[in-house]
Amino acid sequence: MLIKNISLLAGLNPDGKTRRRGSEMSELPSLADAWLRIAPDGTVDSYGQADTLPAAAEAEETIDAAGGIVIPAFCDSHSHIVYAGSRHGEFVDKIHGLSYEQIAANGGGILNSADRLHQTSEDELFAQSLERAREVMLKGTGCLEIKSGYGLTLPDELKMLRVIARIAEALPVTVRATFLGAHAVGRAYAGRQADYVRHIIDDMLPAVAAEGLADFVDVFCDRGFFTTEETERIMEAAATLGLRPKIHANELDFSGGVQAGVRHKALSVDHLERIGDEEIAALSDSDTVATMLPGASFFLGMPYAPARRALDAGATVALASDYNPGSSPSGDMRMVWALGCIKMKLTPEEALNAVTINGAAAMDLSRSHGSIAPGMSADLIITRPMDSLAVIPYQYTSPWISHMIVGGRQV
Amino acid sequence: MLIKNISLLAGLNPDGKTRRRGSEMSELPSLADAWLRIAPDGTVDSYGQADTLPAAAEAEETIDAAGGIVIPAFCDSHSHIVYAGSRHGEFVDKIHGLSYEQIAANGGGILNSADRLHQTSEDELFAQSLERAREVMLKGTGCLEIKSGYGLTLPDELKMLRVIARIAEALPVTVRATFLGAHAVGRAYAGRQADYVRHIIDDMLPAVAAEGLADFVDVFCDRGFFTTEETERIMEAAATLGLRPKIHANELDFSGGVQAGVRHKALSVDHLERIGDEEIAALSDSDTVATMLPGASFFLGMPYAPARRALDAGATVALASDYNPGSSPSGDMRMVWALGCIKMKLTPEEALNAVTINGAAAMDLSRSHGSIAPGMSADLIITRPMDSLAVIPYQYTSPWISHMIVGGRQV
Repeated sequence: MLIKNISLLAGLNPDGKTRRRGSEMSELPSLADAWLRIAPDGTVDSYGQADTLPAAAEAEETIDAAGGIVIPAFCDSHSHIVYAGSRHGEFVDKIHGLSYEQIAANGGGILNSADRLHQTSEDELFAQSLERAREVMLKGTGCLEIKSGYGLTLPDELKMLRVIARIAEALPVTVRATFLGAHAVGRAYAGRQADYVRHIIDDMLPAVAAEGLADFVDVFCDRGFFTTEETERIMEAAATLGLRPKIHANELDFSGGVQAGVRHKALSVDHLERIGDEEIAALSDSDTVATMLPGASFFLGMPYAPARRALDAGATVALASDYNPGSSPSGDMRMVWALGCIKMKLTPEEALNAVTINGAAAMDLSRSHGSIAPGMSADLIITRPMDSLAVIPYQYTSPWISHMIVGGRQV
Repeated sequence: MLIKNISLLAGLNPDGKTRRRGSEMSELPSLADAWLRIAPDGTVDSYGQADTLPAAAEAEETIDAAGGIVIPAFCDSHSHIVYAGSRHGEFVDKIHGLSYEQIAANGGGILNSADRLHQTSEDELFAQSLERAREVMLKGTGCLEIKSGYGLTLPDELKMLRVIARIAEALPVTVRATFLGAHAVGRAYAGRQADYVRHIIDDMLPAVAAEGLADFVDVFCDRGFFTTEETERIMEAAATLGLRPKIHANELDFSGGVQAGVRHKALSVDHLERIGDEEIAALSDSDTVATMLPGASFFLGMPYAPARRALDAGATVALASDYNPGSSPSGDMRMVWALGCIKMKLTPEEALNAVTINGAAAMDLSRSHGSIAPGMSADLIITRPMDSLAVIPYQYTSPWISHMIVGGRQV
């Protein structure tokens, strides 16, 4: 396939970088007036400037970008899109000022999501979740991490992970699965958190690994959830099974989760609304990606994580959607990009690196996804004709995608 | 035309209300399992419950809503969508922390928009603006107020108003035009604000009225812009020409603009980020609509106007987009609805009344638009199938419109 009349081909990767860190995030290698050819295997074959436009091979499909910009598809490295039912009732309860306890009594919160998931068949859960995954794909996402964590029992965690695997089969999107048994203490273990942690380590992790259903492990390491000590034990057990950590950290408090994640070479530590100089220094000195979730801050009215400071200190900053029914009911990565600019004061280029190459790095996918180079997966967004990349986050609600290509095929 | 299989027909108006004030805003008269018939003249003919579904007349177009909800189209009572060019460069300058003066030097701000508009032909201005108006129509807006105010000379203000009139002709959307010569002091009058105000009163207003190009008059009554005394003089002059005021007030300071507007029976006072008990009391005791613009607060990081307090005190609260290139580059009224819920803590029903019937009231259109009743314009949004109205602001980025009907015709 040949794409011609590209006004700007942005997000190239001539040096084979697998992340952009700190000040490198302002770099966005690009080519004006370009074409791009996709190989039959769905990877990028070649690209060049308009005056070198190759003749399309006979019967080769050609897309006229008509002056649109081409960027890498988004790499959303943190989502919880497998869930049962909607939690819009809880949204209204929050507007009415109900407390967390009242909301839980009305059917909100993680444990109620777990109840609802328990009562939902795998096929129904798959159907609901697939619809969400297809929606975010059409909104620009080419790689998507999905977490378990609304099961909280071994059978229901496996059900979630099997649904994630089925989504990966059903869509051309590249999916990475994360086992998040330690999202909350399951109801059967109420008041017995230590026993639940043992259950995760002794029973759940080995079973998940045996079925090959997870790429990564996650723990909600924060005040009121799991301690750093518990988090470290889970990470250690997961390491013996080949599962690298991606940790929920420092959303609610200065929890020590960032430092614990860095010590255990986590791929990423995620959330980071409550971090200071110490956490930023730890992230800047490490290869652990600092993944921030501005959609949750927007929806809950929390402070935004200090993306600007972390970037200026040299960290590798990624932005992800946190798509989930309680705190971030949106998987729209263009909105995440816009929030990165509007609220976190990243430039359009910095925030684009955060939602592409650095998101890929947070899923250990950046050798093949998240930027544009020969041999990499042709996951590409062709925009409507526009003057500047900055228009996309600036006119944050205007329609902007003209073609979405995943694995070399238009979706 | 017949619309059948409506799961919820919401925003009915059995009592012929022309606004919903205070606690009435929580009321949203609705009918479950409904149908609705549109008369050939584009008004609502009748509606009823499914068991009374009339047989479609021969050759009558029928839309199967397939379980979608039907609501009134949005009435966006405050926009500046007629402008030339984009100001995404200014967006990036702001991210870089440039001052207002530096941004103005780089081509930002109202005066630079005026320069750019001056250099743009009426036809080109119309083409650019029409595209934006069509976009917001397809996103649910059925009635739209558009202001002048990037002209700041008589010829350029007239050019803008003529473009607004052409948009009204080109689209089925109901458009109301507001003359906002007092948006800033034009360059030719730099340092001579009193002279500019006299020019507005003596020359601009009579010319605008003579050509019949404006329905309303607006003044930017705020610190650093126009004083309450100047605002009152402009409102008085406009009143003699039959132009009712809609006033920009209390965005930057406790400017007295709210009280001035109420005294002069303004249709609405708009912005209201800086209001206290006194302003709220004045609004609650009057028929002046309190129009709030959460998109500007979101984009600029300003405080949100106190919608909840104003509503609880008995005011008529409307929400509008403020679509403009500097402070609110979005005309998406579903996003405005969502911001009303997420940030201002209005319920989905309250916020929907704020973007429909009360927006219509702020344009003096609520006898014919902004709610659903026989004889009123059939401006309707049919949603995708969904369980609850609350899903729309809750899943604030998910696709939601299945059909958009303006003046009884699908667009």
